[in-house]
Amino acid sequence: MSEFSLDVIRQAAARLRGKVVRTPLLESPMLSERAGCRLLVKAEALQLTGSFKVRGALNKVLSMEHAARRQGIVAFSAGNHGQGVSAAARQVGCPAVIVMPNNAPRIKVENCLWWGAEVVKYDPQTEDRVEVAQRIAQSRRMTVIPPFDDYDIMAGQGTCGLEIVEQLEEIGVRPDAVVINCSGGGLASGVSEAIKNAFPNTRVMIAEVLGYEKVARSLESGRPESNPSVPKTILDGISGPTAGAKTLEVLRRHQATGLSVSDDDGLNGVAAAFKMLKLVVEPGGGASLGVVLAGKADVAGKNVVVIASGGNVDPSVFSMALERC
Amino acid sequence: MSEFSLDVIRQAAARLRGKVVRTPLLESPMLSERAGCRLLVKAEALQLTGSFKVRGALNKVLSMEHAARRQGIVAFSAGNHGQGVSAAARQVGCPAVIVMPNNAPRIKVENCLWWGAEVVKYDPQTEDRVEVAQRIAQSRRMTVIPPFDDYDIMAGQGTCGLEIVEQLEEIGVRPDAVVINCSGGGLASGVSEAIKNAFPNTRVMIAEVLGYEKVARSLESGRPESNPSVPKTILDGISGPTAGAKTLEVLRRHQATGLSVSDDDGLNGVAAAFKMLKLVVEPGGGASLGVVLAGKADVAGKNVVVIASGGNVDPSVFSMALERC
Repeated sequence: MSEFSLDVIRQAAARLRGKVVRTPLLESPMLSERAGCRLLVKAEALQLTGSFKVRGALNKVLSMEHAARRQGIVAFSAGNHGQGVSAAARQVGCPAVIVMPNNAPRIKVENCLWWGAEVVKYDPQTEDRVEVAQRIAQSRRMTVIPPFDDYDIMAGQGTCGLEIVEQLEEIGVRPDAVVINCSGGGLASGVSEAIKNAFPNTRVMIAEVLGYEKVARSLESGRPESNPSVPKTILDGISGPTAGAKTLEVLRRHQATGLSVSDDDGLNGVAAAFKMLKLVVEPGGGASLGVVLAGKADVAGKNVVVIASGGNVDPSVFSMALERC
Repeated sequence: MSEFSLDVIRQAAARLRGKVVRTPLLESPMLSERAGCRLLVKAEALQLTGSFKVRGALNKVLSMEHAARRQGIVAFSAGNHGQGVSAAARQVGCPAVIVMPNNAPRIKVENCLWWGAEVVKYDPQTEDRVEVAQRIAQSRRMTVIPPFDDYDIMAGQGTCGLEIVEQLEEIGVRPDAVVINCSGGGLASGVSEAIKNAFPNTRVMIAEVLGYEKVARSLESGRPESNPSVPKTILDGISGPTAGAKTLEVLRRHQATGLSVSDDDGLNGVAAAFKMLKLVVEPGGGASLGVVLAGKADVAGKNVVVIASGGNVDPSVFSMALERC
């Protein structure tokens, strides 16, 4: 029996109340027509720090003992988790170090610095980010905040799913499917736990980088798999190297299946969100939207929830998407 | 004594409940720091049709008698009012004709067509849009839906202000000032009525096109003034030719004052909303945000509400703003 359940998500929601944004569940008749299904888009790009990541980070740091918290926290992150941890540290008033790849989008680095964190860069081709973070944690007596494979993190991200359930109940809609952008599986596991408890018949699908579907492969093999290499993709928000063990267990329980997202799909998702939702999303944040628009999810005529999970995108990348409008 | 009051706005809110989006009141610590005040941004770009205009149009058409409604409705509009009227007509199932200048942004024309309206174009340099609309209304026995100078329209737009009041009360914030994008004054009059009833000491400011401050001049002269010519501006959403008589009376009662917005201010507002709010706004919709960021509103250290009133912007214009990030 898993230690992860709806209860811990509810506890996280109580902890986070008033400290994070209750993001809207957006709908556009024009977008739904184009998708061929009724699309409901959880606008998590409007979250504090521009992505869902602050939910898990803040739940984690609020669960830490006071003495440990005072020493500070460390995170390794392609970007959005780093911003979430930086903002969480600022909210509770503790130091934070963010370990980032040297090719991280400029906006994500700048934002961590703005929240008051220290940024330490590493080379993803030659160095191991976990080792870099652990070295800093040991030397400074800081706590590593894991990006996804942790019940507190998963519960924090799951509060996004609790809100979706409430918002669907407010408008009287039963979801046939939910499509969730997936890197390590923190958001996907948390959200699917919340949604499956309320709507047991909803299909759970995860959106991963085409050719780098580590979580889909893990669901088949039954153990956490890794990507064979670092993907060269514009979908940086969902390009992490490994699946989690805890997240995998939850996703297996909910019979999640995988969808493969191309860079094209991601950019089409960004363009559609710009044009029809007036929402800024990053390519990885628009992956689930783009993959549904591409007709890859087999959801014609259904009620489909997608999560626009983040909006931290460099202007040059956004311009590429605008050319598709 | 005016026939316009909080009561008619409350009646409009009851009529519109569940039919329009309760848009979020967004905040970004980074944006507030840059503005030098606590900024609260009403994200009306997330409204159905991408602007607040559907509120007034739908309230108007829901107030019409059934026989008149069946004949259909006509609107003259630079764009957003046209989309609002088109969507309102679709919701109640009646025909709609939108009279638009031949230089209206492509996206606004396309969207009216998508909602099922017929678009009739005119030349703003040689033709009078009111006459064009009235000619169509007479020949087809349709009702003209005025863009702003009408109590039903003003009350509909005022529901945006009611939501702001509720949202401020939820977070326990008293606004020192509200800055509202202003063309004919429908949004400004409705929102100021709602806000002044709850917070009598809040300063009301209107944001108009630099050099074309017809409403500010009307507030001084005491009667509706017109712009001397059609402005060549990127702020098309707030470039209408005349102030309203009814809107003016309300704005005078609330001692509104004017702010002048340059194209630069508008584009800076668009860029800031992209970067820090993850919200797509059009230049006219970002006017109030841009003018506060430019330091023109004298609100240092205050609690300031601005309305991101619309997000219907062509990709080419949005790209211009991205270059400022």
